[in-house]
Amino acid sequence: MANPPACPGFKFAGILAGIKATQRPDLALLVAEADVPAAAVFTQNRVRAAPVELSEKRVASGLARAIIINSGNANACTGPRGVEDAQAMGHYAAKAIGCDEKRVLVASTGVIGQPLPIERIVEATPRLVAAARADGLEDFTRAIMTTDRFEKRALALVPLGPKTRARVVGVAKGAGMIAPNMATTLVFVTTDAAVSKSFLRKALQEEVEVFNQISVDGDTSTNDSLFLMASGAAKNKPIEGGDKGLAFRQALREVLADLGRQIVRDGEGATHVVTIEVLGAVSAADADRVARRIGASPLVKTAIFGADPNWGRILAAIGNAGVEIVPSKIDVAIGEIEICRGGMGVGGQAEHAAHEVMRRGEYIIRVHLHGGRGEGRHVTCDLTVDYVKLNADYRS
Amino acid sequence: MANPPACPGFKFAGILAGIKATQRPDLALLVAEADVPAAAVFTQNRVRAAPVELSEKRVASGLARAIIINSGNANACTGPRGVEDAQAMGHYAAKAIGCDEKRVLVASTGVIGQPLPIERIVEATPRLVAAARADGLEDFTRAIMTTDRFEKRALALVPLGPKTRARVVGVAKGAGMIAPNMATTLVFVTTDAAVSKSFLRKALQEEVEVFNQISVDGDTSTNDSLFLMASGAAKNKPIEGGDKGLAFRQALREVLADLGRQIVRDGEGATHVVTIEVLGAVSAADADRVARRIGASPLVKTAIFGADPNWGRILAAIGNAGVEIVPSKIDVAIGEIEICRGGMGVGGQAEHAAHEVMRRGEYIIRVHLHGGRGEGRHVTCDLTVDYVKLNADYRS
Repeated sequence: MANPPACPGFKFAGILAGIKATQRPDLALLVAEADVPAAAVFTQNRVRAAPVELSEKRVASGLARAIIINSGNANACTGPRGVEDAQAMGHYAAKAIGCDEKRVLVASTGVIGQPLPIERIVEATPRLVAAARADGLEDFTRAIMTTDRFEKRALALVPLGPKTRARVVGVAKGAGMIAPNMATTLVFVTTDAAVSKSFLRKALQEEVEVFNQISVDGDTSTNDSLFLMASGAAKNKPIEGGDKGLAFRQALREVLADLGRQIVRDGEGATHVVTIEVLGAVSAADADRVARRIGASPLVKTAIFGADPNWGRILAAIGNAGVEIVPSKIDVAIGEIEICRGGMGVGGQAEHAAHEVMRRGEYIIRVHLHGGRGEGRHVTCDLTVDYVKLNADYRS
Repeated sequence: MANPPACPGFKFAGILAGIKATQRPDLALLVAEADVPAAAVFTQNRVRAAPVELSEKRVASGLARAIIINSGNANACTGPRGVEDAQAMGHYAAKAIGCDEKRVLVASTGVIGQPLPIERIVEATPRLVAAARADGLEDFTRAIMTTDRFEKRALALVPLGPKTRARVVGVAKGAGMIAPNMATTLVFVTTDAAVSKSFLRKALQEEVEVFNQISVDGDTSTNDSLFLMASGAAKNKPIEGGDKGLAFRQALREVLADLGRQIVRDGEGATHVVTIEVLGAVSAADADRVARRIGASPLVKTAIFGADPNWGRILAAIGNAGVEIVPSKIDVAIGEIEICRGGMGVGGQAEHAAHEVMRRGEYIIRVHLHGGRGEGRHVTCDLTVDYVKLNADYRS
């Protein structure tokens, strides 16, 4: 008996095309039964890969039939040839599917600055399309991975009526070069709900915020893309807002938050996942800046690695956020342990207890600025010896 | 026979007061023969140590007699007690010197958030003042060190007439938490030139720019201070601008650039010092932003550690600088080897040659944006396994 479909209305595939040297799957496809509402957000890096430019142009129509993705090569900084290669990926996928190539989106991830082995991709494409199955999500997820240690998937349900629920299914890849700004890494979210083109775009643009609250190393990639497609297989009246719209957005947010946390947990070399919560800022934007600055500080991140409750580094990072604060009002807690009150240390016993909290794999650092009602958060991981080793390897 | 004076008109001392657990010198003094012109710049971090607040207030007069410095404890995030302790340091130093306490500046460096062992400092102060000698600069330099592996000193000469030259002598400490913004770490510069109060301040404010072009880890400390005092022992007509002013500024700039480079070379765990030069930006400010962003990228810094000519990471960092660029115009060279031309890789042979350059301890990464005439630079070091180990040590 076949497994149940991952998301009704979509088929998925992942195969080995020979792009990676490691003999791991590296070509993936997501295809709907017809052209369906689609939305996407892309990297804010000024250096953008060829597939990002192509997909951004095509998704502006609000419709898509399929996405073809390769891993092992980012097709970034590859000049005019890179543009041709991205177009060719879309062209041959459309030919094998039997659809308009303008409805095929393209994504790539991997090493920057090497020409794509396009012949291998073109050759493998008919096999890829033939492999697409309703229960092929696992193959798909594996084929988009690069330095990822584990697969990242998330599911949320959208109540549509007393007996009907639509699904929101997301998969992502990403472990390094993570500091999303509007979008991150490669993320693919599908839903079987019927959603209007314009509401789908709006929902994505607003809910992607939760994805911007994560970082591994503060670097943003040239290829970050987040795609969302709605098959309508649930046969509901297309969602355009209202209660159903809220329920859909909540499910989307849940999936994105879940995938973001999975990406941080898979952060290159990471041994701890820490959520930084900032309360009492003048505004939410200020709170976000403070949370992000703490999460980006190499000194804080190495202290997290060493389970060192070095709250002085946290205060120094807060002071560097470029936000109005009153140092003598700041409280800091690690897990349930307050270690800094009114800008001063609570004492050795509290630090010892905080050290115990920090030995856990996952915990919260809570900062209260006592300056207003703005709240923000950021999810980050530690900076470890393995992060440095992993990224210092000379490639050739 | 005594050594020649380090900088006529000044005496220096460095002794062991028992602040550090390591039995290393930790209390230092710099004292002029009378109140002399003085200027200073301080950390832009919003969380500022008590001695920073005190010294900033006092140096506003443009005059100072002495600076007392302790290492091993930053007296930061120490509340009202920290303010009292900083005042006490100045008070007892003034008493031992026999001067107005308003003319004594105070600086501290070391761990954040622990109360200063003020009794030990007060007790040691008469001994410190008695130890001050014209050739005591070496003792002074050692007593301000924390995680520094070596002493940082620099000298430049100011031609004042056919036979007379004044000296500009600088010493600094710093190895981690380095990303200066108007000032950095602790830096003490003395000159025997006579310089007017207002010109001294102006010269410092403009020439400190060269100090802002360095980073180790992108964190800025709560205690960064840079002090400049002019004894006038050279007996020249006080410099207020003109040719002599230019010569003085040039000497000051030279000393600051030299000290900055020494701090990066002593960067925590650093094995490479890299100067990033950016040409062809729309403006100098844009060029500086790009250079700083490259120098701050963990992925670029780990590639430097691994001698990996991974120019794709450099392009990704440029794209993240928030500056208008045309990716297809960017050239990147490592040392004398061009590895990226027009936004695309030059090839494997060039990368191999660049890898050889990167095995040197010190080299230049040159980026040309071909978008204007703006130029900028940044001096940074690599992100190494030792940086992480050094900063992940649990303190207690």
